Amino acid sequence: MRVKLTLAANFVFVSAAFAQSSTGQAPITSSSVTLFGIVDAAVTYGTGSDASKTQLSTGAYQPSRFGFRGNEALGGGLGVNFWLEAGFNADDGSGVAGNTNNTPAGATSGDFISFNRRATVSVIDIWGEVRLGRDFTAIYRNREQVDPFGTNGVGASQPHVGTLGGPTATRASNMVGYFLPPGLGGFFGEVQYFMGESIQYSPAPITTPNLKDGNGYAARIGYGIGGFAVALSSSETKFARSDTTGDINSVNVGASYDFGFLKLSGGYYRDKVDRIVPVTGTGYLVGGAIPVGVDLVRVSYSTYGTDEAGSPRSRKFAIGYVYNFSKRTAVYATYAHLDNSGGASGALAGSLTAPDRSSNGYDLGLRHSF
Amino acid sequence: MRVKLTLAANFVFVSAAFAQSSTGQAPITSSSVTLFGIVDAAVTYGTGSDASKTQLSTGAYQPSRFGFRGNEALGGGLGVNFWLEAGFNADDGSGVAGNTNNTPAGATSGDFISFNRRATVSVIDIWGEVRLGRDFTAIYRNREQVDPFGTNGVGASQPHVGTLGGPTATRASNMVGYFLPPGLGGFFGEVQYFMGESIQYSPAPITTPNLKDGNGYAARIGYGIGGFAVALSSSETKFARSDTTGDINSVNVGASYDFGFLKLSGGYYRDKVDRIVPVTGTGYLVGGAIPVGVDLVRVSYSTYGTDEAGSPRSRKFAIGYVYNFSKRTAVYATYAHLDNSGGASGALAGSLTAPDRSSNGYDLGLRHSF
Amino acid sequence: MRVKLTLAANFVFVSAAFAQSSTGQAPITSSSVTLFGIVDAAVTYGTGSDASKTQLSTGAYQPSRFGFRGNEALGGGLGVNFWLEAGFNADDGSGVAGNTNNTPAGATSGDFISFNRRATVSVIDIWGEVRLGRDFTAIYRNREQVDPFGTNGVGASQPHVGTLGGPTATRASNMVGYFLPPGLGGFFGEVQYFMGESIQYSPAPITTPNLKDGNGYAARIGYGIGGFAVALSSSETKFARSDTTGDINSVNVGASYDFGFLKLSGGYYRDKVDRIVPVTGTGYLVGGAIPVGVDLVRVSYSTYGTDEAGSPRSRKFAIGYVYNFSKRTAVYATYAHLDNSGGASGALAGSLTAPDRSSNGYDLGLRHSF
Repeated sequence: MRVKLTLAANFVFVSAAFAQSSTGQAPITSSSVTLFGIVDAAVTYGTGSDASKTQLSTGAYQPSRFGFRGNEALGGGLGVNFWLEAGFNADDGSGVAGNTNNTPAGATSGDFISFNRRATVSVIDIWGEVRLGRDFTAIYRNREQVDPFGTNGVGASQPHVGTLGGPTATRASNMVGYFLPPGLGGFFGEVQYFMGESIQYSPAPITTPNLKDGNGYAARIGYGIGGFAVALSSSETKFARSDTTGDINSVNVGASYDFGFLKLSGGYYRDKVDRIVPVTGTGYLVGGAIPVGVDLVRVSYSTYGTDEAGSPRSRKFAIGYVYNFSKRTAVYATYAHLDNSGGASGALAGSLTAPDRSSNGYDLGLRHSF
Repeated sequence: MRVKLTLAANFVFVSAAFAQSSTGQAPITSSSVTLFGIVDAAVTYGTGSDASKTQLSTGAYQPSRFGFRGNEALGGGLGVNFWLEAGFNADDGSGVAGNTNNTPAGATSGDFISFNRRATVSVIDIWGEVRLGRDFTAIYRNREQVDPFGTNGVGASQPHVGTLGGPTATRASNMVGYFLPPGLGGFFGEVQYFMGESIQYSPAPITTPNLKDGNGYAARIGYGIGGFAVALSSSETKFARSDTTGDINSVNVGASYDFGFLKLSGGYYRDKVDRIVPVTGTGYLVGGAIPVGVDLVRVSYSTYGTDEAGSPRSRKFAIGYVYNFSKRTAVYATYAHLDNSGGASGALAGSLTAPDRSSNGYDLGLRHSF
Repeated sequence: MRVKLTLAANFVFVSAAFAQSSTGQAPITSSSVTLFGIVDAAVTYGTGSDASKTQLSTGAYQPSRFGFRGNEALGGGLGVNFWLEAGFNADDGSGVAGNTNNTPAGATSGDFISFNRRATVSVIDIWGEVRLGRDFTAIYRNREQVDPFGTNGVGASQPHVGTLGGPTATRASNMVGYFLPPGLGGFFGEVQYFMGESIQYSPAPITTPNLKDGNGYAARIGYGIGGFAVALSSSETKFARSDTTGDINSVNVGASYDFGFLKLSGGYYRDKVDRIVPVTGTGYLVGGAIPVGVDLVRVSYSTYGTDEAGSPRSRKFAIGYVYNFSKRTAVYATYAHLDNSGGASGALAGSLTAPDRSSNGYDLGLRHSF
């Protein structure tokens, strides 16, 4: 059987209108293979009290990528999907780091291309989807889907930028996931189990503290009806307790309401690292997206900080405009201002700022999808 | 000239029905370019006397890959073929190691994607095929083609898993090969010369022991008629003699007969490393594949060991089932049991076992091709 | 919108007929996405006074590559183009080194695939093209476009092989470029600004000598009418001054005239490195390409040397033949002879030669494009 290759140029525009929704796939009724990608480059400028930086950056609106994905319908509502997606840097052509075992030691270099963004194969039917491989973790969805800036560029929400969530905060490898099917009266959700793939000694020697490093789970349950949606997610990743790390627990909640002239969104986030001296990070986001014809005004306020000495915390205000030439091509501009307190020294766009000083960031870019 | 891009979704099913056959290409009569790939992920569990491991693995039925290949017909039976094939790990999206000069020093890291599986360009006519680049070595074919498990997953034959064949046991880079054309009354064959690409001093200084490291040849001649096929192959790769390595000579023979209700296969393998204290490894395989409608029962018994002190040897029994949803999509399960003797401590699926103890491995996976 | 994927098999033949021309893109009037590539492998042999080398090489006629590129017409002459192009080695399947920040420290390993050749996104209209990303620098064009051997293989011009131009001599990352539109009465040109992306301390501490490392510009202006073309280019890349490096200034000029039975070309090149003890390299090339039906005889004489002690200089004579089976497929053979003087010890194709001795190189290869 030879199947037709298509190019999906329209999916990006839809995801750009951020939405609280399921990330599972509907039952498959036809077969296709699709080549897709995004090339997004921006001139980015960051200023801080100590140093500034000008650069050509990548993915300030949507991360640059290319990939192959496809469906095969097997009849009776049963189907298979695969999805291979590689990130790259549009400013220099290099790749983006991945992680092979969900631990700091498994991080790969960012110089070269791999399917770091997603490598999955799924079986899907009316009962839902079972997905195997590397993918976003459920806990990430409530950061991405309620952030008008989609966690990208200088406007990315602070609960994303500052998260204590560790190597699995955004994606995990070696994962088995189950997604609820669509059409459950508005309910959507997923559960994921991922493995660090350490060897399991029998009996476990006491000298093997990393026996379960990188093992964990993530789950999310949500409800959407009309323009309203809310979702709750939770995750735990195991790491042997030390001065600098330990089991990481994250919970968050995101909600959004589409008034038509304004899509309002918000989220609350808490990450706890069970180090020898535990640390907890908390934050929230309030965002809005205002359609202007086919264009978009984006605005958000977000904050994230920890309970370490001084209670360091950063607060960001961001505003931007997306000018859509077409569904595939947009020009965008973003301005963000970051304030620090409690000894925090967060800085935007590669700049450096002293503790408790502020920083500014600017993106002016072009995103093209294919 | 613009040529049509096609997707080849059917070639995998054919290769899955293992066959003793030529690996050269028939004369080219039309032009096309094809995007192809396999995504294969499995939950794999291995147990040994010392430690067990659970993982999401990749390619336990057929190695995950993507690639581009194409033909151009030049008229009069003359044609050109190219084949670019990159392996990847479906569990984490990373790449698979290759080798740039056929020596241990030339091994590349497995984190990122390269065309490690095959990068070739060929000229083909009625006299056969000349193929340049990186490809399987001839010696590998008698391991792959007679193994019901295709050298993959927990069921992979011991003569493949334990081979002393060194860096060129499976593939070689910098290779010039010639393949006999089809239609020679059942005869098929290939010869290959590959280069380590060391610099050749003139006159060669005595202090340059690695002058020819990674240079070598491989050859194979076979005969197939009706359901019967047999093939003999041989290879030599040069390495400077030391305590741990030296010239590697391999010979093997594979045969198969298709009874219709059962495809029976067998192989015998011998690899000799001319170290300061030479070592020879020998093994054999007996395998069977039983079609059950469009599905397949696979079973094999194989053994490989060396003449080192104690005569270490491992013996594997493997049985599995492949359920074909379609030509593109299959679910498979494999069980394998490994016994060790003479001090061998082979273990399955990442587990650890003590010398002379046994190990078990289990794969449960999904393979989708495009 | 779903756009059709095409394969561009014809662009290579055109570029193989080297031409002094604009490298900007004409206004876009239709939308397409194209998969393209070249697989080029050769048996290459080099001899020198000290050592010889035989290898399977890659890209001795045109560098092996694959990529995706596409256009979107936005109406009114406005359009967007993207171009992602990854180099690879056809002899072993590995990738080709890139550079993330235009400095020696930013060089990436060559083992794995990245879009090292080009990663750009452009906006184009009747006023010209603005191009963002990694691409050739303008200074490189007068080396490539007047060299009958296109800077590839044993015949590559010495001003290319020996250039002192540093990391941005051929390509730069983090670049913003502007290209004149076509149709300016024969004038063509481009200006490029590229960034090393070092952080800019404020005030800049005296202990940060690499503040601007890898920043620079390149520009080119040319004029072509009938069979005649001439172009002038210039570039500067900033590096902190030391014993081994400093700001690099390059200027060159290339010209060509097509007599029909012969295309004659020439170039003059000067590169200056403002080290503590400055060094200047100069060279020139005279080349010719003689069509023989659809085939091509290529010949060139080139020289490059520096003003360092002894005035080391290498001189190359190269001659070759390209036999075109079709627009996509060619077989080629090249012979080159290199002479050294002033202590230079340049050698061809991986061989080694003593100072002031000569070296020979031979390529016999196959190039296929898709």
